[in-house]
Amino acid sequence: MRYARVAVGGRAVWGRVGERDIELLSDSPIEAPGEKGPDVIGTLPRAAGVWLPPVVPPVFYAVGMNYARHIAHARAATPDRPEVGYRANNALTGHGSAIVKPAGVEGRFEAEPELVAVIGRTVRHATREEARKSVFGWTIGNDVSARTWQHQDRTFWRSKNSDTFKPMGPWIETDVDALAQTTTLSVNGEVRAEFPTGDMVFDPFDHIVEITRHLTLHPGDVLWMGAESACHIEPGDTVDIAISGIGVLSNPVLLEGNPA
Amino acid sequence: MRYARVAVGGRAVWGRVGERDIELLSDSPIEAPGEKGPDVIGTLPRAAGVWLPPVVPPVFYAVGMNYARHIAHARAATPDRPEVGYRANNALTGHGSAIVKPAGVEGRFEAEPELVAVIGRTVRHATREEARKSVFGWTIGNDVSARTWQHQDRTFWRSKNSDTFKPMGPWIETDVDALAQTTTLSVNGEVRAEFPTGDMVFDPFDHIVEITRHLTLHPGDVLWMGAESACHIEPGDTVDIAISGIGVLSNPVLLEGNPA
Repeated sequence: MRYARVAVGGRAVWGRVGERDIELLSDSPIEAPGEKGPDVIGTLPRAAGVWLPPVVPPVFYAVGMNYARHIAHARAATPDRPEVGYRANNALTGHGSAIVKPAGVEGRFEAEPELVAVIGRTVRHATREEARKSVFGWTIGNDVSARTWQHQDRTFWRSKNSDTFKPMGPWIETDVDALAQTTTLSVNGEVRAEFPTGDMVFDPFDHIVEITRHLTLHPGDVLWMGAESACHIEPGDTVDIAISGIGVLSNPVLLEGNPA
Repeated sequence: MRYARVAVGGRAVWGRVGERDIELLSDSPIEAPGEKGPDVIGTLPRAAGVWLPPVVPPVFYAVGMNYARHIAHARAATPDRPEVGYRANNALTGHGSAIVKPAGVEGRFEAEPELVAVIGRTVRHATREEARKSVFGWTIGNDVSARTWQHQDRTFWRSKNSDTFKPMGPWIETDVDALAQTTTLSVNGEVRAEFPTGDMVFDPFDHIVEITRHLTLHPGDVLWMGAESACHIEPGDTVDIAISGIGVLSNPVLLEGNPA
């Protein structure tokens, strides 16, 4: 099943995404699981959907170095245990919305294609089996980064969390073996990176087991799993991140002050 | 005015805190400002209140080094501009609830007394005057930190964000000159630190001006302002953080697995 959030009359509404239509739902399928799930309250032609981030997480977790090639490229040490950092909800934007490059950004401005696990249960001290069951579904994230700011600042606050720097979507896919897929990053239709999605140092379940040794994960929390490669993007570009079996997250890049 | 969130029948309800009673409100006073504000839907004797974190922020911002003595103690450089990091909502707990020290924590386990600004408006590119107006009110935070983990880990994920490591409350005070107050940290009634609350390198409004150059602050976001001093705490202790004109945030410390 594919679940999304779309804007309807200025309001965020959950939907179940079909081939042609989106069935609008009375409630979040994450918070109201059960056999029946939320009620269908209407239908929207899929082409009319304005896609929002498929969830606004209580906590937005992000894994840093998690692919061998990324670690080698950054000349970093391979992590010996799963760790997480954080990103911020103000930076989220949906499928189809613009990534706005701030006027003051110089140097490399990059897209990073990431698998995202969406947590569906309250979970603490998870076994690996419980970690598997705690994932409601999977979506796609683009960890947009302004590298000059990343090197200048003490934290990732503006380099990775400026408004629109965290596209997520288009939907949450609940029926996929996410680690058996392929991630493809394209700019203006040209492939810039392609790698096995599951080729991670520590997979999502390793992270959930380790994280929940110390803290509680809650329904709607997201865990961004890191990327193998990044590529430079510029205003005027369109960035597509495809993960087979999930979908394509596509976002145009605009320059701040030039909403072309 | 003092606004809090209390647990009523397992549900979080907003309240206006009086001398003896809490007037329960229909809605968040932050989201529904206006002249009238939310409706009063009931009354709870203040002594019966189970205090929750006074807000669950969309984004949880935290300032690091912001007091001269803390910077000297950490042998860090004085920041030349305001910057922010992040904390995580899973770690929040209310006034009166326990700080749970994980069984595996060794070394210094510390309390840090912090002023917290609660944002009341959507704000971007704020002037200093707009920054002042964007603050709905003020509360108190305890940035509990497990120092050994802080030194071992790549991020602050478990050192500062394990469950219960972020007590906040007891309420949001809307009518106070927060920067003209005194912060006092006590353990079991004995004062361990006392400093002028406003003696910061960059004050909350400096931070809001700088942050909103790059991103949007939203109603309910919180900005923890850092501490001048910290002190070690142990299971069995009760930690009180008083900020004059706001209130006292008090939390007992328990050892994990020993909910005494």
